[in-house]
Amino acid sequence: MTHATTVWQANRSGGLTGAEALVETSLAAGVDVCFANPGTTEMPLVAALDSVPGTRAVLGLFEGVCTGAADGYARIAGRPAMTLLHLGPGFANGIANLHNARRAHSPVFNVIGDHASWHLVHDAPLTSDIVSLASPVSGWVGTAASGAGLAQLTARAVAAATAAPGCGATLIAPADFQQEVLKAPVDVELPRPRSRPEVAVDVIDAIAKRLRAGERAVLLLGGAALDERGQRAAARIASATGAVLYSETFPAAAERGGGLPDLDRLPYFPEKAIEALAGAQLVVLAGALEPVSYFGYEGVPSLLAPYGTVEVLSTPEEDGALALEALADALGAPEPAPQRPRPDDEGLPDGALTPQSVGRIVARLLPEHAIVSVEGGTCGYPFFTASSRAARHTTLTNTGGAIGQGLPAAAGAAIAAPGRKVVALQSDGSAQYTIQSLWTMAREQLPVVTLIASNRAYNVLRTELGRHGQSRPGPNAMALTSLDEPAFDWPALARGYGVPGTRVETGEALRRELGRALAADGPQLIEMAL
Amino acid sequence: MTHATTVWQANRSGGLTGAEALVETSLAAGVDVCFANPGTTEMPLVAALDSVPGTRAVLGLFEGVCTGAADGYARIAGRPAMTLLHLGPGFANGIANLHNARRAHSPVFNVIGDHASWHLVHDAPLTSDIVSLASPVSGWVGTAASGAGLAQLTARAVAAATAAPGCGATLIAPADFQQEVLKAPVDVELPRPRSRPEVAVDVIDAIAKRLRAGERAVLLLGGAALDERGQRAAARIASATGAVLYSETFPAAAERGGGLPDLDRLPYFPEKAIEALAGAQLVVLAGALEPVSYFGYEGVPSLLAPYGTVEVLSTPEEDGALALEALADALGAPEPAPQRPRPDDEGLPDGALTPQSVGRIVARLLPEHAIVSVEGGTCGYPFFTASSRAARHTTLTNTGGAIGQGLPAAAGAAIAAPGRKVVALQSDGSAQYTIQSLWTMAREQLPVVTLIASNRAYNVLRTELGRHGQSRPGPNAMALTSLDEPAFDWPALARGYGVPGTRVETGEALRRELGRALAADGPQLIEMAL
Repeated sequence: MTHATTVWQANRSGGLTGAEALVETSLAAGVDVCFANPGTTEMPLVAALDSVPGTRAVLGLFEGVCTGAADGYARIAGRPAMTLLHLGPGFANGIANLHNARRAHSPVFNVIGDHASWHLVHDAPLTSDIVSLASPVSGWVGTAASGAGLAQLTARAVAAATAAPGCGATLIAPADFQQEVLKAPVDVELPRPRSRPEVAVDVIDAIAKRLRAGERAVLLLGGAALDERGQRAAARIASATGAVLYSETFPAAAERGGGLPDLDRLPYFPEKAIEALAGAQLVVLAGALEPVSYFGYEGVPSLLAPYGTVEVLSTPEEDGALALEALADALGAPEPAPQRPRPDDEGLPDGALTPQSVGRIVARLLPEHAIVSVEGGTCGYPFFTASSRAARHTTLTNTGGAIGQGLPAAAGAAIAAPGRKVVALQSDGSAQYTIQSLWTMAREQLPVVTLIASNRAYNVLRTELGRHGQSRPGPNAMALTSLDEPAFDWPALARGYGVPGTRVETGEALRRELGRALAADGPQLIEMAL
Repeated sequence: MTHATTVWQANRSGGLTGAEALVETSLAAGVDVCFANPGTTEMPLVAALDSVPGTRAVLGLFEGVCTGAADGYARIAGRPAMTLLHLGPGFANGIANLHNARRAHSPVFNVIGDHASWHLVHDAPLTSDIVSLASPVSGWVGTAASGAGLAQLTARAVAAATAAPGCGATLIAPADFQQEVLKAPVDVELPRPRSRPEVAVDVIDAIAKRLRAGERAVLLLGGAALDERGQRAAARIASATGAVLYSETFPAAAERGGGLPDLDRLPYFPEKAIEALAGAQLVVLAGALEPVSYFGYEGVPSLLAPYGTVEVLSTPEEDGALALEALADALGAPEPAPQRPRPDDEGLPDGALTPQSVGRIVARLLPEHAIVSVEGGTCGYPFFTASSRAARHTTLTNTGGAIGQGLPAAAGAAIAAPGRKVVALQSDGSAQYTIQSLWTMAREQLPVVTLIASNRAYNVLRTELGRHGQSRPGPNAMALTSLDEPAFDWPALARGYGVPGTRVETGEALRRELGRALAADGPQLIEMAL
């Protein structure tokens, strides 16, 4: 799984510091982007990002910007970025988006500077239990005990992060070990890319047998199985067996449009999802987890598939696309003629914007190979539905439900894929959690068009209040679900961060402004009044 | 410590839910403000905030606003507010400011909605290890196991939060128990205010003996000992013995000005603090902890007082003001004539703003009984120095070093003290972490004047880079410590959130605009170009 190397460079005048050894190892392991919001205990690492050249350092004004960007970067680049965060409280600000990264199986390499090891005992103001904070969002946590350990644990952390299906790995780097000058070469075991495990033949045969027997089936694709190969293989299976195809509800990255089969997302609300799966005798999971209700509602089952119908074709770790291809082959499903795109060439809706008209307009104007970062229900679902007829693109969704993911993920995706346009399709409430992302887009001049679905309410919570029998919310419930009084001035917020912004109220205006924004070089923001 | 009560109300049609029992108990325990950013799993509690009247619910657009506001509220009101946050990731966004609250010994009552207990096993997307996240910032953590348990644990949590010296107490409230209709009355043990323990006479006598013997002494006041009584008693001791007085470096709330003795803060950087304490044969702690270096620097001691000189007069739990009075009495220190304010009546500096001119202008214009929330070094220290000659006011500082504390604490303080003007004296970099606070100020029309010290850099990090021998930072270090390219447009950001904002560059303009802003009713923002 790994191969040995040495990070020591004898010709470095004055020797290599622990921080420099960390950065060298990180580069050697293929990590060359660092989303950072450092503090005093990370200063040797900040200096090392210059003395060891090769890393692009990107500043976030708030740590959730850094971790969300690292998640978006990993989903597009397929490899980890580093985050560099300050002690426990700085890391804590990044936890929410690391939660989403965990659910996306995104590889992320977190580096947290800590107090000098000999200073910890004095419980200075910024001291806290970093391991307790990091563990819930980290598949791997390690604390270095020497300068050399920083290099060795960097390699371990990147190996843990990149092992399928991918996870966050968090390295705690005490300041004294960052500063320590190494006295001898350090041997580190660098992670080597390792293919995903293949699904055993008997697993594929067993599912093929049931499909051949004519069982009514649903194929639920998720994770890496949602790539182009996986989707095309799934379409072969569907046309050979009549199986119904779905994407998991919140895919980390779904290829979409340009003639790919139309895999809609399994509905969000459990009643709808149960309905979608109700007729199935067999629910085949390819890279997806067994579908469960997002929240538990009294009287509604948590497990959404009919009892006893679920079979795992491939786990998130395994090579799901290969398994789907093998399954299609086992079924003798013919290679279909390449599907031609069916662009939506009907007239686009004018007049006051609705979530549906927004979805269709954005899908229609999307340039080839765009990336769409979707957060918030208002326009997210209508766009996904419309987007099967768009040009080929990649959609990122909020995998873990921690709000504030869409804007930083868009920024990270843009950094991962120079030359691809990025659209952040974002609800107004959720945009506020990591609003500082706009500044990073401006500083890095990222080609991100942020579309704010501005309905001035936490609409999903109004719906949930209704589900709890609160069809007429009282004053506190209204105050806690309304974003009016005052309404945000989105163009002003954008301008405050150096992003040109405008506001539209009609379909005509959205088409005009979105076309203009997509043709511009740097970031743009459009508030869509709904 | 507690007295029994019953929250059951037989006349409530349909019975009391667990959520309603929680809110009733909370109100009975004196908690009537809730800083909230709720989600689906908190909807029964949101409904209960209306069905059980009496709580003021204040929405924060981001959880760090809620927890920082609860901290500021507690420091001024002396009692806890509730925070209502959504599952692990929502709580995680509030951890940084709960870290500051922990270091301030602020009582805070956190309520986190969790998945229905029977839904947890399915590991739905938003599931995480909440206890692991909450423990580092909570003196008490509890998870309810029934609707009645929500009431009982609310009382326990508030009791834990309010027991001296105060802490955060976190209650995890599964959604099903929030909805559960109670079938029988619930007896809860409500917390009863309990006086701080008194310092034993022999402790006071031992210190008095050393002072009478003429030892060169420093008195370091912190926590509750920094109230008016404590400061006046300390001044008696100082004038009787020649002891030097200091406030801890980051007081939670320091009374200041209006003729109070001038207790400057112990310097931040360890070399300066060591120098300040160097001559002491006795360092007496009254409510303060032993001074330690904020960060560990190679070759600089972590402990700042000379070896063997530290004596604890009162711990943060104990009644420090009473102990100081007893010590003054034991020394036979006379009651001094009431000190008259010595207002700074020299001409105020005009021309380009400097941190010193900002400090003097703000101190001079401060209205009686203002609250000043200080975050960031640029203007914070110069203001504190100047503020001894200001009208009587209360200064809040960032106790834990987690950035993003100043604006939400200002909002919470304003809610705790209607009628008092609040000034948030805030550095530009740190203001960005919880910038959404401006919106809460606008919505609640809080009389907060936010002053942004705008130097477009993380200046403290530049200083720290210099300490690490990086006098000429490389390009990555520059990128990670600069806030230029683009500069923030602060008036635009303020307008985006509904707060009138302006920008000043000179002393004349600051005096004019600050005077106008302090006379206005709602929130105002002034960017001070430095």
